[in-house]
Amino acid sequence: MAHSPELSVGRIPIVGVQPSLEEGRWPVRAVVGESVPVTATIFREGHDSEGATVVVTRPDGRRERLPMPIDNWGLSLYRANWTPRQEGLHTFRVEAWSDPVGTWLHAAEVKIHAGVDVQLMLDEGVAILTRALKEVRRAPAKQALLEQAIASLLNGRLDPESRLAHASSAELHEVLTAAPLRDSVSASREYPVLVQRELALASSWYEFFPRSEGARQNRRTGEWTSGTFTTAAKRLPAIAAMGFDVVYLTPIHPIGTTHRKGRNNSLKTEPGDPGSPYAIGAAEGGHDAIHPDLGTMRTFKTFVKRANEEGLEVALDIALQCSPDHPWVTEHPEWFTTRLDGTIAYAENPPKKYQDIYPLNFDNDPEGIYHAVRDMIQVWIDAGVTLFRVDNPHTKPLDFWERFLADVASSHPEVIFLAEAFTRPAMMHTLAKVGFHQSYTYFTWRQSAEEMGEYLEEVSGPSSFYMRPNFWPTTHDILTPDLQRGGAAVFKMRAALAATGAPSFGIYTGYEFVENVPRPGAEEQIDNEKYEYKPRDWDKADQHGIVTLLTALNDARRRHPALRRLRGLTVHHTTNPQFLCFSRHLTAEESPTGRPDTIIVIASFDPYHVQSGVVSLDMEALSLADDARIVVDDLIGTDTYTWGRDFYVRLDPADSLVHVAAVRP
Amino acid sequence: MAHSPELSVGRIPIVGVQPSLEEGRWPVRAVVGESVPVTATIFREGHDSEGATVVVTRPDGRRERLPMPIDNWGLSLYRANWTPRQEGLHTFRVEAWSDPVGTWLHAAEVKIHAGVDVQLMLDEGVAILTRALKEVRRAPAKQALLEQAIASLLNGRLDPESRLAHASSAELHEVLTAAPLRDSVSASREYPVLVQRELALASSWYEFFPRSEGARQNRRTGEWTSGTFTTAAKRLPAIAAMGFDVVYLTPIHPIGTTHRKGRNNSLKTEPGDPGSPYAIGAAEGGHDAIHPDLGTMRTFKTFVKRANEEGLEVALDIALQCSPDHPWVTEHPEWFTTRLDGTIAYAENPPKKYQDIYPLNFDNDPEGIYHAVRDMIQVWIDAGVTLFRVDNPHTKPLDFWERFLADVASSHPEVIFLAEAFTRPAMMHTLAKVGFHQSYTYFTWRQSAEEMGEYLEEVSGPSSFYMRPNFWPTTHDILTPDLQRGGAAVFKMRAALAATGAPSFGIYTGYEFVENVPRPGAEEQIDNEKYEYKPRDWDKADQHGIVTLLTALNDARRRHPALRRLRGLTVHHTTNPQFLCFSRHLTAEESPTGRPDTIIVIASFDPYHVQSGVVSLDMEALSLADDARIVVDDLIGTDTYTWGRDFYVRLDPADSLVHVAAVRP
Repeated sequence: MAHSPELSVGRIPIVGVQPSLEEGRWPVRAVVGESVPVTATIFREGHDSEGATVVVTRPDGRRERLPMPIDNWGLSLYRANWTPRQEGLHTFRVEAWSDPVGTWLHAAEVKIHAGVDVQLMLDEGVAILTRALKEVRRAPAKQALLEQAIASLLNGRLDPESRLAHASSAELHEVLTAAPLRDSVSASREYPVLVQRELALASSWYEFFPRSEGARQNRRTGEWTSGTFTTAAKRLPAIAAMGFDVVYLTPIHPIGTTHRKGRNNSLKTEPGDPGSPYAIGAAEGGHDAIHPDLGTMRTFKTFVKRANEEGLEVALDIALQCSPDHPWVTEHPEWFTTRLDGTIAYAENPPKKYQDIYPLNFDNDPEGIYHAVRDMIQVWIDAGVTLFRVDNPHTKPLDFWERFLADVASSHPEVIFLAEAFTRPAMMHTLAKVGFHQSYTYFTWRQSAEEMGEYLEEVSGPSSFYMRPNFWPTTHDILTPDLQRGGAAVFKMRAALAATGAPSFGIYTGYEFVENVPRPGAEEQIDNEKYEYKPRDWDKADQHGIVTLLTALNDARRRHPALRRLRGLTVHHTTNPQFLCFSRHLTAEESPTGRPDTIIVIASFDPYHVQSGVVSLDMEALSLADDARIVVDDLIGTDTYTWGRDFYVRLDPADSLVHVAAVRP
Repeated sequence: MAHSPELSVGRIPIVGVQPSLEEGRWPVRAVVGESVPVTATIFREGHDSEGATVVVTRPDGRRERLPMPIDNWGLSLYRANWTPRQEGLHTFRVEAWSDPVGTWLHAAEVKIHAGVDVQLMLDEGVAILTRALKEVRRAPAKQALLEQAIASLLNGRLDPESRLAHASSAELHEVLTAAPLRDSVSASREYPVLVQRELALASSWYEFFPRSEGARQNRRTGEWTSGTFTTAAKRLPAIAAMGFDVVYLTPIHPIGTTHRKGRNNSLKTEPGDPGSPYAIGAAEGGHDAIHPDLGTMRTFKTFVKRANEEGLEVALDIALQCSPDHPWVTEHPEWFTTRLDGTIAYAENPPKKYQDIYPLNFDNDPEGIYHAVRDMIQVWIDAGVTLFRVDNPHTKPLDFWERFLADVASSHPEVIFLAEAFTRPAMMHTLAKVGFHQSYTYFTWRQSAEEMGEYLEEVSGPSSFYMRPNFWPTTHDILTPDLQRGGAAVFKMRAALAATGAPSFGIYTGYEFVENVPRPGAEEQIDNEKYEYKPRDWDKADQHGIVTLLTALNDARRRHPALRRLRGLTVHHTTNPQFLCFSRHLTAEESPTGRPDTIIVIASFDPYHVQSGVVSLDMEALSLADDARIVVDDLIGTDTYTWGRDFYVRLDPADSLVHVAAVRP
């Protein structure tokens, strides 16, 4: 084994630096204003003192230095919280160093107290503090404190403990922590952190099918007229009024007619069936074109402008698959798989067939497909789209996404991609690592309080440094058993969990009406909007109080930074297995407001019975004393409660299955 | 973010490759014949099949390829066991690839069974198996199987399922697993593995003070005559007969007289007190010299030769510290710390003083000290020493050790270093990472059955890839409370735990006599051998049966490879909290003999009462069916038992506190 200096353990060892993904293979992610805990295992030989610093290099090359105090002596763990203030690729390194002042001070305090080597300790102190004064730059007021400590050490009229007093004062300690005298500085490697805008982490999405908004059926002929961008834009004020950040449109492209699916996923279409917007491409164009029923690029841009005026950003759906009528099928048959019999392979999961869809084959002409997709996305970015929901990214090669997402980010770092991959964990995690900003999750399928608690702990744990969950109670594809049964009470409870359990959540339109009838044998809605027009009577939207609830939840998220962060979650013990209690807590240091922020959520998973039980808060996790009393306001109700560590809760489905309680400062 | 191909996720993603230390910052360790599990998370887009291979590059550059089958589908985890056959620095990488045969076969089996695309599936099979035949080299008999499968697919006289039969046979699967057709091969980075000789992992040590062996006291004058290498060598046959591999000598160098410690660590010496051998250096020389009382370099080499003839290797103690009389103090005062008053700093842990010891200061002249230590160690290697027990390595800089150990290993890879660092975990783990072959552990202080079980699981877990524990029931510095009280029964039990709980263990001489009286207020022996001569009456050595026990334990270790491995340990449930039951199990694939090997150890931690309880074996961990019956022989007793999953155990301190049971094949 040759001695390799760049991998050396270093004079003062630094191991296990976090956060890091395979030692910098990919950058970890953060957003502006999000507190990032940097930790490392640091120790040294013998009894001398060491110290540590985090050095952050910003995108412009400027450096920021943070004191890194010890966090757990037994584990030799040091920690600093760093809060990025600008977007872009940062790097950080950890520096560990010999601390001659600390070494001397520890010995001096013990020995002078014991009357051992007194003069020697005082003399050494003068020498070391003089070095600290001369070798490190500080403001004059700080240097004066050092000079004062030196003068005291030299002052023969005082007794030895008094001569030492200034040197061991808290004030001097603070000065030396901010600007320490550092010997034998050792450095870790540089670790990358990609800082993005806050919306990449914290966002609330509202999904709808633009063709449904303003769609009209002729009562006489039964014929439908599609909604358009212009009619759909009329929904925007209401969506904005509920406090959403993002309006997400299912695909807006021309829809194929070959093997078009009918209502309820039927293989037979009836005349006038609009087809699934996921069967993309027809004579009118492909992924860069607009369905003529919806409007034109001009009216689409007007829609985007209207949304922006309402404070909403627009998300489009990217489904990289083609109907048999897509222009690419004839222009680039090499982008698909041609079977031995000369036909193009449609999508299959043998023995199931999806003959309305041709998957792309990324291996035949990777460069050709890459540039076509890159050009296509630019069309929509140029039209003002700033977010994309990517359909089934796990059916396309990951090296394609890695290249594509890096490429888009280099010129459009503001653009956000949400991965819709419901699959095994390794794929979901790696999609996040290679560049997706957000991810759909298993939230929807976590049906019991215990499962949900474990899942909340999981997504807010170590994966929080790269994978940002986006919680959806339903989608146009998913209606889980609990929502098929429990009525409005469960719809409300799961909306509240989604809005508070993760910093990003989304609602699929119609949720307001408690649309909970499944297609028999399927976990999706009957009369699925994918295959038909579905206009809704928005005048009755708040009949279940869900508009009011969503408005309150989005308002709470806006006012409480704890709800816009992924880390800081704790699940608390309850005596009732139907209950889930969790908190989101930011310390003053971690909070962008500089004030601590704490939300406590308590939900009952039983929509049929009144449930009660005792909740026991992990007070330490909330930075509270064990005997503290807290006053909380329910942000989705009107009640105020006073709680201690243990308190009784009763949740009646006739009233509400959930409290979202903000702790008063 | 620029697209960085060497860090790309790859066409078929590979993440989380293990074993690795910070992605190759240091090599993981293995010994010749030790099974190394290589794991990685591998998956791909869509529904097509993937496969994986481990490629090992040996020190001579030759490559070895191992099929890497899936181990856990849900976790996307692949695994291969690799057993190194030669010493030296190896690297491995993981390759993942598209598996066109697997993709086709899965579709063909489903679709032909369902009568869908039958001819197309058969035609595609011919095309793909023809590629597999032509593009990959195999022995003629294997290729014949492929040809047969192709001929069947083409055989129009058979029904479709029969035409497919050969292609989906187990025989063909085996041929294609050994030599697969691989498309889109993606590779991980290279990960280093340093392979050492087996003694680096599995060794049994016997420690003694050579001056005590053959030391004589003049009855009239009370004066002592030191033992010598020549008299000490007389102990070697008995040590070898007990089956030990290593004889370890405490320091053999000249001992300082300034501030020499007297008996029982007294600050006052009496005339004739020999002093601590850890106060190294006097007029006669330093670390490269021999104490004149013990002999000369010539007689030392004769001692080493005698040991080698008995099948023993010799370990020396390296304590990098100096008495005030060490030649380095006058020749190189810059290697020590000079205080402001001009004196050389002695060792201190304020307010405690150790005035007989001057610590080296590695920062003043690192190169000078480095070369002096390197030259010194060469003296002993040239004299035939092949192991070193390093005293307090955690009080010297780790970058010193990293350089030193790499340097020694480059010319003497056979030389083994054991770290005596009883300190915080981070230091102990990092000493192992930077190159120590073995480590003393907390074994000695794990006093309850539960603590011990947890500790055994810990040391045989992920750290087993770099840190190799060496378990000592006592040392010349340590006599724990349980051993001060429980008598011979506990001495035997802890010797058995040490010998079976880790692949390396050590015994400090005198253990045979149950020397269990502590110096009051200390956890070490009274009349500590560090400060006086301690000859023993070896004719009575087996009075407690401990010689017999140690002989049986070392014999069991020699015959059972499961006892010479760190991984493969399982702690089993017992109904009695005083009981610890653990097993060591190697599958046939993991075992160097090619046969499975299983040892079950059951110990009672209560030396005062008869204890009984039920043990429930984790049968899966032993590769046994849940209803299997096993016949076991107690290797340190004479009994044979028949056990099932649950069985009753009774341990009587009057008889034995421990079973070491070998499962009959």
